[in-house]
Parts: sequence; C-alpha cells; structure tokens
Amino acid sequence: MTARDLILKKRDGKTLTAEEINFFLQAYLRGDIADYQMSALLMAIYFQGMSFDETVTLTRLMRDSGEVVDFSYLSGVKVDKHSTGGVGDKVSLILAPLVAAAGVYVPMISGRGLGHTGGTLDKLESIPGFKTRLPISRFKKQVEEIGTCLIGQTEEICPADQRIYAMRDATATVQSVPLICGSILSKKLAEGINALVLDVKVGNGAIFADASAAEKLAEHLIRTAAAFNLKTVALLTDMSQPLGVAAGNWIEVCEAIDLLQGRGPQDTREVTLALGAIMLQLAGKVNDLQTGMAQLRILLDNGAAWKKFLEIVRAQEGDVSYLENPGKYPPPKYRREIKAGTSGYIAAMNTREIGRLSMILGAGRKAVNDTVDYTAGLWVHKKIGDQVERHEPLLTLQNSGQAPDAAFERAARGCLTISPQPVSPPKLLQKLFDADGVHSITEIV
Amino acid sequence: MTARDLILKKRDGKTLTAEEINFFLQAYLRGDIADYQMSALLMAIYFQGMSFDETVTLTRLMRDSGEVVDFSYLSGVKVDKHSTGGVGDKVSLILAPLVAAAGVYVPMISGRGLGHTGGTLDKLESIPGFKTRLPISRFKKQVEEIGTCLIGQTEEICPADQRIYAMRDATATVQSVPLICGSILSKKLAEGINALVLDVKVGNGAIFADASAAEKLAEHLIRTAAAFNLKTVALLTDMSQPLGVAAGNWIEVCEAIDLLQGRGPQDTREVTLALGAIMLQLAGKVNDLQTGMAQLRILLDNGAAWKKFLEIVRAQEGDVSYLENPGKYPPPKYRREIKAGTSGYIAAMNTREIGRLSMILGAGRKAVNDTVDYTAGLWVHKKIGDQVERHEPLLTLQNSGQAPDAAFERAARGCLTISPQPVSPPKLLQKLFDADGVHSITEIV
Repeated sequence: MTARDLILKKRDGKTLTAEEINFFLQAYLRGDIADYQMSALLMAIYFQGMSFDETVTLTRLMRDSGEVVDFSYLSGVKVDKHSTGGVGDKVSLILAPLVAAAGVYVPMISGRGLGHTGGTLDKLESIPGFKTRLPISRFKKQVEEIGTCLIGQTEEICPADQRIYAMRDATATVQSVPLICGSILSKKLAEGINALVLDVKVGNGAIFADASAAEKLAEHLIRTAAAFNLKTVALLTDMSQPLGVAAGNWIEVCEAIDLLQGRGPQDTREVTLALGAIMLQLAGKVNDLQTGMAQLRILLDNGAAWKKFLEIVRAQEGDVSYLENPGKYPPPKYRREIKAGTSGYIAAMNTREIGRLSMILGAGRKAVNDTVDYTAGLWVHKKIGDQVERHEPLLTLQNSGQAPDAAFERAARGCLTISPQPVSPPKLLQKLFDADGVHSITEIV
Repeated sequence: MTARDLILKKRDGKTLTAEEINFFLQAYLRGDIADYQMSALLMAIYFQGMSFDETVTLTRLMRDSGEVVDFSYLSGVKVDKHSTGGVGDKVSLILAPLVAAAGVYVPMISGRGLGHTGGTLDKLESIPGFKTRLPISRFKKQVEEIGTCLIGQTEEICPADQRIYAMRDATATVQSVPLICGSILSKKLAEGINALVLDVKVGNGAIFADASAAEKLAEHLIRTAAAFNLKTVALLTDMSQPLGVAAGNWIEVCEAIDLLQGRGPQDTREVTLALGAIMLQLAGKVNDLQTGMAQLRILLDNGAAWKKFLEIVRAQEGDVSYLENPGKYPPPKYRREIKAGTSGYIAAMNTREIGRLSMILGAGRKAVNDTVDYTAGLWVHKKIGDQVERHEPLLTLQNSGQAPDAAFERAARGCLTISPQPVSPPKLLQKLFDADGVHSITEIV
C-alpha cells in the first residue's frame, strides 16, 4: 500500500477502506506522506466524494489524532454550537454566555478567520488581554466553574485536522461535504460534548451559496454525528447579507455587547435565540423551542447573559473596562462613509465581497500568518428590503492600516444593489434538520 | 490573483489565461507557491483537462523555464524520438546510433525509470563508466562531431518540468493528456530539434491501456507540437507484452548489442526500423518509409550502427570492452527460471506487472532516490501467440539483491496466461498519425 495507490484509487472513484484511510493519515502525521500527496488526495475527494463509511472513518481518525476531552464527570449535557461561517457572524460571543447563564455547559473551541469569513478567536482577542490559548486543564476547569470557556484549537486537539485544514483553503478544497464533516465533527467530538447545534449558512456569503448544497451538508453532518451518538440539530440561516450591523473584530464585539445588554440588531438576536433554544432543548432544559426562546429573552434583557460574558472575559484575562466603556477603545485611524448613489430599495448584497473587503481592510487574513487590525471592519447600515435615499450612508469602512482608496470605495458601493421596486427581505431562519428529517421553522418555533 | 483563485478556477472547469498560468508557474519556481498547491492544481487539471491554448501555453512556459539549446548553426534537420514508455523498451539505444549512422543529427535527452517503466539513462549507466550527466556545451559538441549524444535532463533544461514531473508519479496525476503533452514537448523543444517521432505505446504495459486514449494523446501531441513548428509524427505500437526479450538494464543493453550487430528479436528490430525510417523521412533523407527501412536494415547488418554505438560510448566515457565482450560483465547473484505449468498458447501477459516485478527485482525505482541493481531484470522467453510445452521456461528472473522467493515466482508465473486454443499475436505497428491525420500502417510501409 502506497500513498500513490490510495490517491489513484480515490481519483478513480473507488471507496477507501478504514485501514487505507488510517494508513494514509498516520503516515501523513509521521511525515512519511508529503503535503503535496495529501492535497492531491483532498482534490480527488473533492471530485469523487466519500461514502458515509469513509466519512465516519475520517472523522474518527481525525478526532483520535489528538486528545479527546472527557467531561463525563460533569453531570448534565454538554452542548456546543458550530457555524459553517459567514460575514458578521458574532453569534458565539453572545450565545456561549447566554446558554451558560441558562445553566447549560458550553465547552467551545473556535477557529480563526480565513478568507472572507471572520473567526470567533480574532473577535475575542480584540478585547485587550483576552487569552484564547489555554491548556486543556484550564479549559475544563473554567467550563466546570463558569459553565463555558471559549478557546482556540490547541496542538493537542485534532492535529490531523489542523494540518489538513490549513491546506484546504490554499488548495480550493474547502467545499467538499465529507471533508467539511470530518473537520467540523472531529473537533466537536474532541470537546467532549453530548449534543451540537449547527448554524448552516445559506446564501452568497456562505460556504455553499445554494440551499440544496447547504441542506445536503446539514443532512450529512447530522447522519455522521449520529454514528458517534452526538445528537445534532442543524438550523439553516440566511447569509445572503451580513448578519447584524458589524463585520470586523472589535466592532463585532461592540455589537455583541449591545445584544448582551438586550439591545442590538434584530437579526443577530433572532439567530442567537433560535440556536440557544435548540441548545436548551438538546440539554433537556426545555421541551419546546418557544419556551427556550422565552427563557433566553429574559436572560438577555435582565443582564444575566451580560454578567456571564464579563465573568468569561475576566476568567480569560481580558480587560472588562473596555467592555463596560467601549469609548475607551483606540479608534480606527481612517473612517469612510459609502453613500447611496441613487434612491430605492436594497435588493441584494455581494456578501462574500463584503467579507473580502473587510479582510483587505485588515480585519481578516489572506494567509494563515497575516496579522489582524482589530479596529478594521465595515458597518452595514442597510439590510435587504430597506428603503434608501440618495446620499444616505450604506456602509462605513474603518481601519488603521492603509486608508481605503477611491477604487476600494467603488468596490464597496458595488456590493449593494439598489432597485427602484420594493424588495422582500430574505427569510432569516429557513429550515431545521434533525435526525428525524427536515422541519419548517413555523412547525417548531 | 492568488494560487488559490487559480486552483479554484481550474477546479470549476474554467480556462486559465496565459497570464494566469505564467503567474502560477513563476511563483511556484520562486517558491512562493507550495508543492501542495501545485499538486492540487495538477489533480484539478486531471479532472477538468486543459484547452488547446492552455496546453500550448503550459508547454511554452515549461520550455522557457530553462535553457533552450540552439542547434541552428548545424545545417540539416535535427530529429529526436520519444516513447511514452513501456516494458523492455530499449529502442533509443539502437535508434540513436542507427539514425546518426544514416547522417541525421539526433540530440537525445532521456529520462530515468520510474514505477513499472524503465529509463534509457539507467540502461546506459549500466555500461561501466558511461556518463549521462554532461554539460550542455559538451552535449552540443558531441552532436556536432558524432551526430548524436544521449544525456539526462540537466538542471538547465526545463526545471519546471523536472519539479512537476517528480510530483506527478507520487500524486497519481500522470495520466493527463495536457500534462503529458507539456512534459514531453517542453523537453523536446528545449533540445533544439526540428522534428520528432513519437512512439505512443498502447496496451496493458503503456501509460494508456486503451487505443482510443493513446490515439487522443498522439493527436494532442502532434497538434501542440505544430504550434511550435515542430514537425511530429506518432507511431502507435503494441505494449500488450514487453518489447523484445529483455526487461532490465544491462540485459537490455545486451539485447541492443544483438540488434546493433544485425541479430536480436524481430519485434524490437521492427519498431526500431519503423521509427528510424520516419526520422529519415522527417530529416528529408528519404521520400518514403520503405526506402528508409531498407537503408537502415543495411546499416544494422553492415556494422555501421554498431560502430556508431561504440563511438558514442567511448565519447561518453563508457568502457566498450564490456560491449565487445558481454561475458566480462559481473553476473547476477541469483537466477530463477519460471516454467509453464501447462501446455498451450501464450494468450496474454500482464505487462505492467512484469514491469513492476522487474522494478522490485532491483531494475527500477519505487521512489526517485532508490538505487538500481544493473544486473536485475527478466528475460521473456515467449511472446503472445507462441506455443508452449508444460515445464518449458517462460521467464528468467535475475538480480543481485534479495533472491526472489516462492511468492514472487508465483506472481511472475501469473503474469502469463496460457490458453489451450491458438492465439493470434498482437499487431506490433498499429497506426501512424501526422498533421494530416491517421494512416494505417499498410498505407505507408
């Protein structure tokens, strides 16, 4: 058995055995199989796919490539959330303290931003002092004491996924359902959780633009997770425009503060409440999502979630004075307003491009080792369906690196399409998938 | 423009511009694009193919990644031969001196064996002292003085191809028509030749087992070469069994000596004469292939080709005493005869497996850096269609490393299928392709 034989087998559309996948992965981790052979296999998988059994094997081997956290000594269900990624998605920042405030354990290992999507870790690290690199022992202790902890993937957790994931973005092999399943679920299984809610994004800012591909991913994730007894529910949510009003790092923290204090944009609040209610239901705290959402609304409005957030930030060495007084934060060096060239209704947004522009402003990374400008990002003042007057502000760009030039401003303006006719806003919460199949949202909420 | 964008574009079946291919290749050669990105692109090309324009651009850029030899100061056509590779293919060893003896310049840059196919360089290097690593200046001088020189690809010639080719075998991306075109033609164009004959092998020991894929390759090669004014003719020849009687290194030199002295197996002689006649016609030395073959038969039978071979070996520092007296060569440590288990007719051979067994005996390389046992190889005593008696020898295995065990002998015996019914031998010379299209062999020979 050689690496070449196995790449050839997958290239020709055949099914790899568990023994073969194991051979490839172990030899790769030992350094006996080169990166260029792994990337060739990844591209062959992109074209030929993987069977259910192959996907389960890959997920298991990736999980077992590192440490698997054991939370079995904590009574109660441990639940996490994963989002397939989008623009302005700061939900984790609100959801973790909110669900922990409701008495559910939320061990959360998050990623960094790459390409046009942001990452929870970068957002958290924009809070001065905040530490996302904690040893597993401290992660466990904080979950035990506070109910939640938000850290980055350490070298101990799924090293196989770490190495492969870093290559996938650079080799255009991200959009492969079995590879996404393996990557997401191996990490989540390593967290020691019992249940998982997935926020599967749909639309032009998501990993899959069309609903059918996103639904296929949701179904595969649920089915694969079930093979590990990980109870999983997926909520399909709109990503045809950025979520909320901010896309960046510190500005997303600011939006999260608003949400945690009972204010903030309605769409971010709605997605957070829906995902949170699913987590409460998975944890056995409520019997239906309506009750869960009602409970969580109270915790947002009465300051309990906000108090929990400050507790987390303090425990992870962040300076809460910046949260209590965001005006203290160093302002961006540059700020540019992008105004509407015409009156009408916002008909569409190029969400991926908005994410890319935010990255170029300094909020994200083109390559894994790029540094991030925490002040950089975009404020989105209008949503699809909103009426707009000529010269009204559509976006505010801000950063502290190189000032955006006229061409950049044109590109930003081009991200919003204005129509003379009224336009209906997209449906935010679209469908819910669980092991029993697909449910419409009205059926459950 | 990033590597990722271009991999994505090809992955999605789009056409890359000349500028994009150039960007990718130059950045790769500079080290700004990683091997794992190149291999992902190669796999995407395997699945999505390349347009004619893309193939021409790739070929041109690979040629121009290094030195292009200029033979324009030598009057007369410079012609080379390239084989797509097979088992027991020692034709270059006979053809170069033969065609040079007929007064045609043959600058020949060859490759090493990899996987189940042998390489001209390894065969030549089995002659004690023979040097295949010569500087370009000496290569040119020898072509000028003797009419031919057989060397390996130096770092100066097509470095882009060298780096990519080394990865293709290890990533199962060899069988891609545009990549094969680029690799073959970039090297041949860098030799400074005006015309080229291609020996495109068809059958289970060839790069493409089925005739239609081999014909498609021949047509693409001719069409791509024409874009560079390189007059090219392709001969499709059988590779459903090893060519001649020997597959290895020194034992193939021994077969070549027989041929160069007017003896040797009929099939090797026939292929050599046909390819040689095409070269004479391309060089304007003869008007038709029959005349060319007749002239070359004389040069084999009167010792002129043999004399030219000795001249080459002397010029490249080989010890001709081993050629004049092959009995002087160190014998292999082990020799095993594989005998027929039953009587009948040879119906088929697993040619690729014979090549692989020869490699395992020590005649070839599993990986680029493996060393070669020059005494190792297989003698093939029977050809498809031959009658065979029970216990008659089919193959002789020989080497000086680890003695072949019983399992190995069984595998070798399993390479030949014996049928009780008479079987027709395969057609050796199948079709001829030139810029005007396809010709049957009877039409031209």
